[in-house]
Amino acid sequence: MTTTEIKVYRDLMGANEKWASRTRALLMEKDILMLNLIGSPGSGKTTLLEGLSAYLGDGTGFAVLEGDVATTRDAERIQELGVPVSQLLSGGSCHLEAKMVFQALEDMDLDDLDIVFVENVGNMVCPAEFDIGEHAKIAVLSIAEGDDKPLKYPLLFQEAEAAVLTKLDLLPHVPFDLPACRRYIQEVHARLPVFEVGALRGEGLSDLAWWIHEQSV
Amino acid sequence: MTTTEIKVYRDLMGANEKWASRTRALLMEKDILMLNLIGSPGSGKTTLLEGLSAYLGDGTGFAVLEGDVATTRDAERIQELGVPVSQLLSGGSCHLEAKMVFQALEDMDLDDLDIVFVENVGNMVCPAEFDIGEHAKIAVLSIAEGDDKPLKYPLLFQEAEAAVLTKLDLLPHVPFDLPACRRYIQEVHARLPVFEVGALRGEGLSDLAWWIHEQSV
Repeated sequence: MTTTEIKVYRDLMGANEKWASRTRALLMEKDILMLNLIGSPGSGKTTLLEGLSAYLGDGTGFAVLEGDVATTRDAERIQELGVPVSQLLSGGSCHLEAKMVFQALEDMDLDDLDIVFVENVGNMVCPAEFDIGEHAKIAVLSIAEGDDKPLKYPLLFQEAEAAVLTKLDLLPHVPFDLPACRRYIQEVHARLPVFEVGALRGEGLSDLAWWIHEQSV
Repeated sequence: MTTTEIKVYRDLMGANEKWASRTRALLMEKDILMLNLIGSPGSGKTTLLEGLSAYLGDGTGFAVLEGDVATTRDAERIQELGVPVSQLLSGGSCHLEAKMVFQALEDMDLDDLDIVFVENVGNMVCPAEFDIGEHAKIAVLSIAEGDDKPLKYPLLFQEAEAAVLTKLDLLPHVPFDLPACRRYIQEVHARLPVFEVGALRGEGLSDLAWWIHEQSV
């Protein structure tokens, strides 16, 4: 055992919360909706954003903040659509922190934007615990992951304002009970809106785009 | 700002490492191999264990420690096979800690066991950072998650002694480049053994079972 005495300085408001509220103030000033997409690696978050880009309407200005542990692969995919995008590398951390999100937003040209999507680091656990100043968290779960995940990872579904079930086209090929999954979601978060999406074929995207527009008014 | 002075006691060996080495000593005493399965929620870890149970051979005694944030669903699935199993609930934490693993092992009848599988909490990031006293970490990645995940979540593949690509039967239905994925894995961990498995149909399980037996001698 070693013993040292140190002083501890503690902010009354945690550092993450402070940056999150700065982000909220910035978004309010610029009249921008920010949505925080959270789901496992490979749950289809980037493909969902690629698909949504065609459904948000020409009059809607949107940008993406891509969170990843490593690589700029997802940001490159979004950039190909001509959508403003920044890559936020967590450097090994399992979730995005509010400070990096704020800094990335400040560096963006926000004047023509209506919506900012944040794609969090692929992880169903940790990102659900952190406020990054978003207006709503959206839980993203792929059909390939199994219908019981809302019960096994309840916090994400409790914190979310909407759930999106992705890769609907895989339904014939995997053991996934869609009514059961919807029931499990309601068990952890009654009346959470649930969208069923097959983003590669465009299924269900107009309903989700409609819900997103409703959030921004 | 508030200021307080407190004493800080720090163990020279971190608490987690201490419990992990106790586990290693216990496993050595009992001549048991312990493997730590790590992958996203829904990557097929439990199904892989269900499938493997038929391929490990009648003479092999094995048990499972099931890690989850919540529910005992996975432990119930393993119990149905007649395999000794305990459920380790992380209570919101994104990974298993060594202390809980040690306690669960101590409570088990270890005398007839050759192998203990630990199924970690579904998460590609955090569990890769924690030693729980295992002999090897095994990275589990489902075909449905996309071929670029080894680049985007490199630590898991760096720490692993083997990688298992699961849900091979979905290959015709998803955009997944198998040779590219194998190349990405070698980029982050040259010569890591990679197994391709379709556990629902038994594909590839005998090769993996053979590798597991090789680890225990």
